[in-house]
Amino acid sequence: MSKKTVTFGEIMLRLAPDGYYRFVQAGSYGATYGGGEANVAVSLANYGLDSSFVTKLPAHEIGQAGINSLRQFGVDTKDIVRGGKRVGIYFLEKGASQRPSKVIYDRAGSSIAEAVKEDFDWDAIFEGADWFHFTGITPALGDNIAKICLEACKKAKEKGITVSCDLNYRNKLWSKEKAGEVMGELCKYVDVCIANEEDAGDVFGIKAPDTDVTTGKVNHEGYKDVAKRLADRFGFQKVAITLRESLSANDNNWAGMLYTEGEYYFSKKYMMHIVDRVGGGDSFGAGLIYASLVGMNAQEIIEFAVAASCLKHSIEGDFNQVSVDEVKKLAGGDASGRVQR
Amino acid sequence: MSKKTVTFGEIMLRLAPDGYYRFVQAGSYGATYGGGEANVAVSLANYGLDSSFVTKLPAHEIGQAGINSLRQFGVDTKDIVRGGKRVGIYFLEKGASQRPSKVIYDRAGSSIAEAVKEDFDWDAIFEGADWFHFTGITPALGDNIAKICLEACKKAKEKGITVSCDLNYRNKLWSKEKAGEVMGELCKYVDVCIANEEDAGDVFGIKAPDTDVTTGKVNHEGYKDVAKRLADRFGFQKVAITLRESLSANDNNWAGMLYTEGEYYFSKKYMMHIVDRVGGGDSFGAGLIYASLVGMNAQEIIEFAVAASCLKHSIEGDFNQVSVDEVKKLAGGDASGRVQR
Amino acid sequence: MSKKTVTFGEIMLRLAPDGYYRFVQAGSYGATYGGGEANVAVSLANYGLDSSFVTKLPAHEIGQAGINSLRQFGVDTKDIVRGGKRVGIYFLEKGASQRPSKVIYDRAGSSIAEAVKEDFDWDAIFEGADWFHFTGITPALGDNIAKICLEACKKAKEKGITVSCDLNYRNKLWSKEKAGEVMGELCKYVDVCIANEEDAGDVFGIKAPDTDVTTGKVNHEGYKDVAKRLADRFGFQKVAITLRESLSANDNNWAGMLYTEGEYYFSKKYMMHIVDRVGGGDSFGAGLIYASLVGMNAQEIIEFAVAASCLKHSIEGDFNQVSVDEVKKLAGGDASGRVQR
Amino acid sequence: MSKKTVTFGEIMLRLAPDGYYRFVQAGSYGATYGGGEANVAVSLANYGLDSSFVTKLPAHEIGQAGINSLRQFGVDTKDIVRGGKRVGIYFLEKGASQRPSKVIYDRAGSSIAEAVKEDFDWDAIFEGADWFHFTGITPALGDNIAKICLEACKKAKEKGITVSCDLNYRNKLWSKEKAGEVMGELCKYVDVCIANEEDAGDVFGIKAPDTDVTTGKVNHEGYKDVAKRLADRFGFQKVAITLRESLSANDNNWAGMLYTEGEYYFSKKYMMHIVDRVGGGDSFGAGLIYASLVGMNAQEIIEFAVAASCLKHSIEGDFNQVSVDEVKKLAGGDASGRVQR
Amino acid sequence: MSKKTVTFGEIMLRLAPDGYYRFVQAGSYGATYGGGEANVAVSLANYGLDSSFVTKLPAHEIGQAGINSLRQFGVDTKDIVRGGKRVGIYFLEKGASQRPSKVIYDRAGSSIAEAVKEDFDWDAIFEGADWFHFTGITPALGDNIAKICLEACKKAKEKGITVSCDLNYRNKLWSKEKAGEVMGELCKYVDVCIANEEDAGDVFGIKAPDTDVTTGKVNHEGYKDVAKRLADRFGFQKVAITLRESLSANDNNWAGMLYTEGEYYFSKKYMMHIVDRVGGGDSFGAGLIYASLVGMNAQEIIEFAVAASCLKHSIEGDFNQVSVDEVKKLAGGDASGRVQR
Amino acid sequence: MSKKTVTFGEIMLRLAPDGYYRFVQAGSYGATYGGGEANVAVSLANYGLDSSFVTKLPAHEIGQAGINSLRQFGVDTKDIVRGGKRVGIYFLEKGASQRPSKVIYDRAGSSIAEAVKEDFDWDAIFEGADWFHFTGITPALGDNIAKICLEACKKAKEKGITVSCDLNYRNKLWSKEKAGEVMGELCKYVDVCIANEEDAGDVFGIKAPDTDVTTGKVNHEGYKDVAKRLADRFGFQKVAITLRESLSANDNNWAGMLYTEGEYYFSKKYMMHIVDRVGGGDSFGAGLIYASLVGMNAQEIIEFAVAASCLKHSIEGDFNQVSVDEVKKLAGGDASGRVQR
Repeated sequence: MSKKTVTFGEIMLRLAPDGYYRFVQAGSYGATYGGGEANVAVSLANYGLDSSFVTKLPAHEIGQAGINSLRQFGVDTKDIVRGGKRVGIYFLEKGASQRPSKVIYDRAGSSIAEAVKEDFDWDAIFEGADWFHFTGITPALGDNIAKICLEACKKAKEKGITVSCDLNYRNKLWSKEKAGEVMGELCKYVDVCIANEEDAGDVFGIKAPDTDVTTGKVNHEGYKDVAKRLADRFGFQKVAITLRESLSANDNNWAGMLYTEGEYYFSKKYMMHIVDRVGGGDSFGAGLIYASLVGMNAQEIIEFAVAASCLKHSIEGDFNQVSVDEVKKLAGGDASGRVQR
Repeated sequence: MSKKTVTFGEIMLRLAPDGYYRFVQAGSYGATYGGGEANVAVSLANYGLDSSFVTKLPAHEIGQAGINSLRQFGVDTKDIVRGGKRVGIYFLEKGASQRPSKVIYDRAGSSIAEAVKEDFDWDAIFEGADWFHFTGITPALGDNIAKICLEACKKAKEKGITVSCDLNYRNKLWSKEKAGEVMGELCKYVDVCIANEEDAGDVFGIKAPDTDVTTGKVNHEGYKDVAKRLADRFGFQKVAITLRESLSANDNNWAGMLYTEGEYYFSKKYMMHIVDRVGGGDSFGAGLIYASLVGMNAQEIIEFAVAASCLKHSIEGDFNQVSVDEVKKLAGGDASGRVQR
Repeated sequence: MSKKTVTFGEIMLRLAPDGYYRFVQAGSYGATYGGGEANVAVSLANYGLDSSFVTKLPAHEIGQAGINSLRQFGVDTKDIVRGGKRVGIYFLEKGASQRPSKVIYDRAGSSIAEAVKEDFDWDAIFEGADWFHFTGITPALGDNIAKICLEACKKAKEKGITVSCDLNYRNKLWSKEKAGEVMGELCKYVDVCIANEEDAGDVFGIKAPDTDVTTGKVNHEGYKDVAKRLADRFGFQKVAITLRESLSANDNNWAGMLYTEGEYYFSKKYMMHIVDRVGGGDSFGAGLIYASLVGMNAQEIIEFAVAASCLKHSIEGDFNQVSVDEVKKLAGGDASGRVQR
Repeated sequence: MSKKTVTFGEIMLRLAPDGYYRFVQAGSYGATYGGGEANVAVSLANYGLDSSFVTKLPAHEIGQAGINSLRQFGVDTKDIVRGGKRVGIYFLEKGASQRPSKVIYDRAGSSIAEAVKEDFDWDAIFEGADWFHFTGITPALGDNIAKICLEACKKAKEKGITVSCDLNYRNKLWSKEKAGEVMGELCKYVDVCIANEEDAGDVFGIKAPDTDVTTGKVNHEGYKDVAKRLADRFGFQKVAITLRESLSANDNNWAGMLYTEGEYYFSKKYMMHIVDRVGGGDSFGAGLIYASLVGMNAQEIIEFAVAASCLKHSIEGDFNQVSVDEVKKLAGGDASGRVQR
Repeated sequence: MSKKTVTFGEIMLRLAPDGYYRFVQAGSYGATYGGGEANVAVSLANYGLDSSFVTKLPAHEIGQAGINSLRQFGVDTKDIVRGGKRVGIYFLEKGASQRPSKVIYDRAGSSIAEAVKEDFDWDAIFEGADWFHFTGITPALGDNIAKICLEACKKAKEKGITVSCDLNYRNKLWSKEKAGEVMGELCKYVDVCIANEEDAGDVFGIKAPDTDVTTGKVNHEGYKDVAKRLADRFGFQKVAITLRESLSANDNNWAGMLYTEGEYYFSKKYMMHIVDRVGGGDSFGAGLIYASLVGMNAQEIIEFAVAASCLKHSIEGDFNQVSVDEVKKLAGGDASGRVQR
Repeated sequence: MSKKTVTFGEIMLRLAPDGYYRFVQAGSYGATYGGGEANVAVSLANYGLDSSFVTKLPAHEIGQAGINSLRQFGVDTKDIVRGGKRVGIYFLEKGASQRPSKVIYDRAGSSIAEAVKEDFDWDAIFEGADWFHFTGITPALGDNIAKICLEACKKAKEKGITVSCDLNYRNKLWSKEKAGEVMGELCKYVDVCIANEEDAGDVFGIKAPDTDVTTGKVNHEGYKDVAKRLADRFGFQKVAITLRESLSANDNNWAGMLYTEGEYYFSKKYMMHIVDRVGGGDSFGAGLIYASLVGMNAQEIIEFAVAASCLKHSIEGDFNQVSVDEVKKLAGGDASGRVQR
């Protein structure tokens, strides 16, 4: 029987100029939907799981289009609450070469940010669920939503549902201090912690020595220490960290590390030409969840998660549009990109 | 010497699916800028006046693009204040045949809605100005902005600047009662009042008898009474009313009436195939202002204003992209649409 | 509790040049999905019913995209069988003025056309269903699929499910003789018969006198006779006929008639500017089914069905993207197309 | 055996904003090719004739793309001379409702305008030809090209090739006086004269009384007089005149008249919704040539020419993309625009 | 005098999402035409040869557009037979980075696949021809078409026309066994054999040792052996093999080898950033044919063929849009990509 | 107080196919404006200077759109003269990999090329100006315009305005001899000379030994000699040279050198993935002017100029759309292209 996952968070309208046009050149915006948690939900549905996404969206058509964007990929949207005033928006300008990508958030006052406790009946939502996932963005949206997150975590724990959290620190949403405090409380209920090369430092002050993320140098040894300290502090079963080396806006190296039961597992490293960088971390998290749920071993898990997210970087939009077979083929070693006829 | 106008209000990012696609079908949005007051400012610049637009916009690129959209048509943007958090947005779905156009506003919390008194130095702004224009939308954005409007009106009056106001009632922004109260105060300073076939009734309870705007029937006699009562109550020098008969989302009849010095002047009526309906009223106001400023007589003014706004309905986007010559040619009687080689 | 409908038939990839470009000018094709039965299923989901669509589609991505196109609007696709070789395609060139629209079918060999009896478990499919709908296109795809249709009809009848059929004659798929024979057998199980102004004549030789569909003249009296003869021959509870007057490729008049329990009910007539004509009849059928299922009376049913399909003509693509509220507003008399803010 | 036609003139790069965007709004231009004579050549090829087009185009890719645009529709381009400096350009802004279409020519200095006598070997070009066509635009490009035209006319005459000329007066290219003088000389060699409702007046001062082309009123009787006087002055075998009534940029009435052997033949009149107006007259000329070459009678000729050009108004671009069958179907009376499946 | 070539095979409608969008994201498909043999025909016409393409296409507009796509580049299409039911289609999703391109064929039942012997009069077709080219795809379409190929080969041989064949193995069309058998028979009549790095192994079991095409390593020595064994078995005058190293979907190394008269000639190797990979092999074949026909020596031939096909990888669509001059400039050593003003 | 710059030259309509399409594949052209001098003016306005652009443009809408393109970025256009016949055009085909970009100029007869002395009142134009910039393209347009350039240079000199000139040799416009002669005269008035790796050789015969620009090898030592010789001959205060290594149409290395007061300053070298190469040199010049005007030291100037122009290569269109902050961030060492949230 298919595993059921529940993901909780925001889905935003993403407005991005075509190709490499800058904001001031844009006469139109590609309109898709995405967000750290929605991206995970779509990936899980694409892998064939019974993936439910929980959020709040306004009752108008811009909200409806967000639901449709999830439904088309088979995400279960029946627990999405309708109401509130607006859909959060983010504007994305794609970078190239030495010019970085740029994100402008316009998410204040969104329906989910202003949701209330009564909007969500977690007993009903978690019925039959095997896994609960959220990210550090959700509690950052406001105190109310942070409390709702906490309630969900506790309820999941009670029901024996595995809980994963991607730290996903966003400095536009809250301070490091506030993040550390709130996330510290939530992490007590988390089994699987996911982070990128900066999150642990930003949120919990746990940094990898000798790493400068802007020069493309990553000190792998340092991340072993980060993972261990995270696991030790919160009792995580698994800590997974993405290791991105940014050579330019077009070229990144990409790898990951999984720490579990005292052991460190490093994936292969991929040299990527980037089509769309946004959602890369989310696709890693989704790969990790899927691989864990279907019972892969630790090395397989990290290889699956990294291969899945490597492929994401070749795909337009926030959502990772790949199948289990495609991920396995890459994880299995065929990175030649030869035409499949 | 060129006349100088000052227009005060909001400029929003307008997001509209191509052609006749509905919101739920949109994979991209055409991104232009517009708004009741900005539209007037652009028209006036297109007619060759020294047109200044005053608003507040965030310091980021989405705000900058709004400024650029005004600058390209020669609007003076040097008095636009930069700051605040977001650009107001409106989503527009173009109707066809029996299906109406649909507008979803997402303008709460915009920089201009949250502007403060100190943002605007009206003495400096009005230097050399001949005309000040605002609409009923601006004070509807919040109590603070209503007070700023009032301050501007008073200052304009002091300086002998003509003040015009388009009533422009928006029921999503405020109640009829609130509108009546606030606009009633502002109208004391207004010389030229512009309204559509519904505004006077919505804002001041002054209605034209025997008119049902949804059946395309307009009782011209009734509007004479409306105009007279408006002028009598507030002492307007001029009252101008647009008379739209909606046959379908594609076909409207369009005319206007000007009441001044006790006389009524009706324009020709145009049967329009609509390309883009939004901004129709604003282009009427701008035509009226231009024609008044350059000293046309009453019949010429209403013909110019109606011909200008008739042409607007054939143009994509909020802004009316026509020249004085083009308006005069139509007002002069050539409505054949023959190719100009 | 929401009513459940089951619709059975084909969903095709629709490839249409933008705007009014002819096939020989097309450098790209808009790619959507549609088909007489899928269109009905989407409408019913848009009205909030529990709408299931049953077909067979290849396991590859072109098939998957067809499923996604249905899922995004909330159609239940879990009974869609995956397999076979190809997705049926139709090419659509939109007409204008005196130039007619043109459809080129490339549907031979599609997965559904080559489906076999074993592909469908009607007992499971019909679980909880209230209504079963198919059209004359489905049995026309081949003898095998005609037999599957018959089996479905019988099974539906056994279970007390209401059965509706849109005659939908396509002369490229089968001869009038063959159609008459096969449809004659299927119609024995049909409760609600839907037809356009030509179908009854093409399939059963039952024609309205004094009607020439190419000159825009429709003899309403004649259609009363057609409906009565259809009902008498097959014992239909309801016969609904669309009455299209084609003035040009852009302008059609549109109305409908419902015959039930010996009475004739005519709808209002709408003068339409056409955005997209394809799927007009299907949206009529879906309106009829919805209105019947929720218990409207006969006059309300025909008004709802005609208003729904009138709106469809203003919408791009095969699918009718309208809500119950929008249909009711038009059926209630507001056809002015005024902007909804 | 297929008839061979030779058409001589200019082919320009046509740059037109999408849809109804004005020049100042255009971020891109649709790039097609067209011109009064090239349009005729393409129509004739589309009707299955052996249609050769003669011009001069630069050796670079912008010139080559012009040739390709002709070749794709089967026009014989082997007599096109390569050389010179530039491709003539025209910018086209499509009008709507009361706003007229606008054409800006940028054709000075084009390769054909600066062609020399030695570029064309008329003996070779006319080998096997049955018909030679040019328009009043070609000699207007310069004195040199006018002389080349004259040489071609004389040579055609010598060889017994039928010569047709569309007067096509363009006031941006030459004065009425100059046009009258040059065209007067050329018309001595012309057998079939084609004109629109203004040309005869502009070029030869032969006007239809009581006609105002900007009000949509056309005095048919007056055109009988115009045609007779043209035929009498130059000895034309046939004079064909298009009769356009411009109601708006979107709506025109369209008909034609043929005068031959002392008799007047009027076509049906079509009420057209316009997709693209440019090339309308050229498609009339091409229809006339085709119908004449295949031996239709006078009434059939004018009906074919008018139906062909009526259809052109529904097609994007300069070229008329219709088949003989499509024209005959419309000329035969089916103007309903019903879908052809 | 220009050399004449005849190419025989299929031309398909190619439907490809824009940029790097995946099939499930596509809202429109770029619509061009292509196919292994048509691509060669277009290249040869672009090089100025008298290039004829022979196939069968349906009489409708989708077939006509295929013909037009060839005609625009000057391919002679007069021997294309019109009839049959459908145009073969292939869907192309462009890969990026580690994500491979994907091709879905929908070509069964195409007009050419169901063509019959009587459709082609090879005596007429070969009149004046110097070269005949086909590929392994054509006989793979069906037994009938394989027989037609054989007939054409025999007839060409009789007439002293050089015959070239690109092995072009497609495993979706036939088994290796069947391919080996049929191609073995056809190769008896072939003078010039073209293959990629896998074909010889797939079709004839002749493999290069120590080569793994998915890791980007190519053993050049091994291919010398392959070429020699091919030549020895079938008596080919020339064997040309492309040597592709797939580093990623974006980056390939590209080179070629020619074996003739006992000698091996290797080209320069190019490191390519890929714009469009499809048709790369075909452009190599066309370069080889052109270079051979105009009498280059062996080293020049392989350099021309490889440079031509290197350029193809920078061009969108199946067709190679380059001139002889452009190829020679690259073959001559300027690979800097500096702007040509 | 903001510094004021005056730039004099041409602004052209730039017509470029989307993406990597070749001219013969283009069905539409992206329409932007650009030109060596206009590009500098826009950059300077983007950096916040009071940047005025002086040229002549026709009074029609294609000319107006050029002005609008400048105004939107805040360039002062009030000294642009309206008149003359045409806007210069250039067609741009973007290269990829081994295929070079291609530019076709169609600028003869443009309004600016045919401008006369009386069109420009340099006393008024230079009022309050700090810097005057022109390039070698402007005098190349014709003898008249060369004289106007000379007059402007003399006037600027008189007024103590710094004069900069980008040599910008274009072999399609004039011969090396003519260029050397005219530029030699103008350079007497120039303070700051800007050149690319070829200009000094083309215009003045001053070449860097051991450099082959088509192989991507640049001999830095040689350029020191070039700069010194230029400065010695003309008495330039500063000589700045861009050093481009063309590896392919997609990949260039980019650096610059500044020679001033007897010292040589080399910038960092950037490895660029190119989005749009046109305007690269102009953005270097603008960076140099800005950095000089705000008082940076020599090393800072060359780093700013090179970083600014490095970023330009990542931006579509001629204009460099970057802020001072963005340039400083790159010049300061962060070239990682990491997302800016």
